[in-house]
Amino acid sequence: MLLAKVIGNVWSTKKLDKISALRLLLIQPMGDDLKPAGNVLVAADEVGAGFGEMVIVTQGAPAMQAFTKDELIPIDAVVVGIADNLEMAAEVAGKKK
Amino acid sequence: MLLAKVIGNVWSTKKLDKISALRLLLIQPMGDDLKPAGNVLVAADEVGAGFGEMVIVTQGAPAMQAFTKDELIPIDAVVVGIADNLEMAAEVAGKKK
Amino acid sequence: MLLAKVIGNVWSTKKLDKISALRLLLIQPMGDDLKPAGNVLVAADEVGAGFGEMVIVTQGAPAMQAFTKDELIPIDAVVVGIADNLEMAAEVAGKKK
Amino acid sequence: MLLAKVIGNVWSTKKLDKISALRLLLIQPMGDDLKPAGNVLVAADEVGAGFGEMVIVTQGAPAMQAFTKDELIPIDAVVVGIADNLEMAAEVAGKKK
Amino acid sequence: MLLAKVIGNVWSTKKLDKISALRLLLIQPMGDDLKPAGNVLVAADEVGAGFGEMVIVTQGAPAMQAFTKDELIPIDAVVVGIADNLEMAAEVAGKKK
Repeated sequence: MLLAKVIGNVWSTKKLDKISALRLLLIQPMGDDLKPAGNVLVAADEVGAGFGEMVIVTQGAPAMQAFTKDELIPIDAVVVGIADNLEMAAEVAGKKK
Repeated sequence: MLLAKVIGNVWSTKKLDKISALRLLLIQPMGDDLKPAGNVLVAADEVGAGFGEMVIVTQGAPAMQAFTKDELIPIDAVVVGIADNLEMAAEVAGKKK
Repeated sequence: MLLAKVIGNVWSTKKLDKISALRLLLIQPMGDDLKPAGNVLVAADEVGAGFGEMVIVTQGAPAMQAFTKDELIPIDAVVVGIADNLEMAAEVAGKKK
Repeated sequence: MLLAKVIGNVWSTKKLDKISALRLLLIQPMGDDLKPAGNVLVAADEVGAGFGEMVIVTQGAPAMQAFTKDELIPIDAVVVGIADNLEMAAEVAGKKK
Repeated sequence: MLLAKVIGNVWSTKKLDKISALRLLLIQPMGDDLKPAGNVLVAADEVGAGFGEMVIVTQGAPAMQAFTKDELIPIDAVVVGIADNLEMAAEVAGKKK
């Protein structure tokens, strides 16, 4: 999954019925050292994430399993958790520098 | 999902029957600050998007769920909504600069 | 889907039975301004594409739906159409420069 | 699959019920010469990997098959094995330089 | 599919039962002009590929269809064929320069 920061909302009045009830977030994926890396994406929110929070984002076919509907919906990115804390081993992290 | 701008149409007379009824758009994915980023893609249109509009594009296996046909079709990118407005938190957006 | 140009054939005598009947093409994905971008890929051909033609390529799980066999086969890229013409709005295209 | 090094843990108190029992690891994908390459990812651990260990990570829809639950869960990256040893042919490896 | 060269083996004693019987290869994807491009990957071997051979690699959900087991297994890259010969049209190849 990606680590990403919630940076905004996306409003869409004209969209498929299958995704009409979803809250769509703008997210910025994080790379090394928790700095922004890669393009901004749109992800559905299933945990109630707030602006500025670090979140865990599932992509692709697995994203469809985050929803409890009877049918699969065309969503390829979804926030599945809020990352409260990242614990990195000092020794291991040091090797990265 | 990707944020992308509709930049054209793709015409194809010789294509698989399964996708023969679809309108195929040329889209330019957007990166940070809503500037073009990454290669142009071809996406099926299911919401009636027009040239120059900012759209939300679902990719991969979830894209197949945008269609209401009985069988799955070989489409890996589909416009699922038009992005009317992007709301970005000033504080969060500022951190990106 | 990708826009790509057919640049060759791939011959394989030792391959899985499930894909033994397929014609495998070498394709070069196209980026902005229809210039080559990204690595050469191998794609199955289901429309009879010729050398030098611009084609539409479906990737990932949706690629498996291009075949009419009873069972799914391990193919992750397939030519689903030949792109006869690309129509780009002058205004929109201009914004890209 | 990716080769990656386990560099930390991700703690999340607010997450989907479907993934609540999983241990989530921070992993750093490896590129050529076993050097870090690409963004840090979050992967579920199904083999008991420790900090600093080199692991094999399955991504996308196949990742969902690593779990023995009755229903599919929204996880797109999972550690499926620990890489004890990498054997590279001298001749082949030499060609890479 | 990717074109890649087999550059080694990956040994793993601690791995999921579902993938315990598989031979895992280190592969180096090829880009333009058959030069190495992109990160080294781990792929299951279903055709008996040898060190230094050029192979065709299927990724993602389609990779799971390369196996003849009753259940799907968590493998996202598999060698489906050995590329004996690459035929490139001179005219087309020339356009790439």
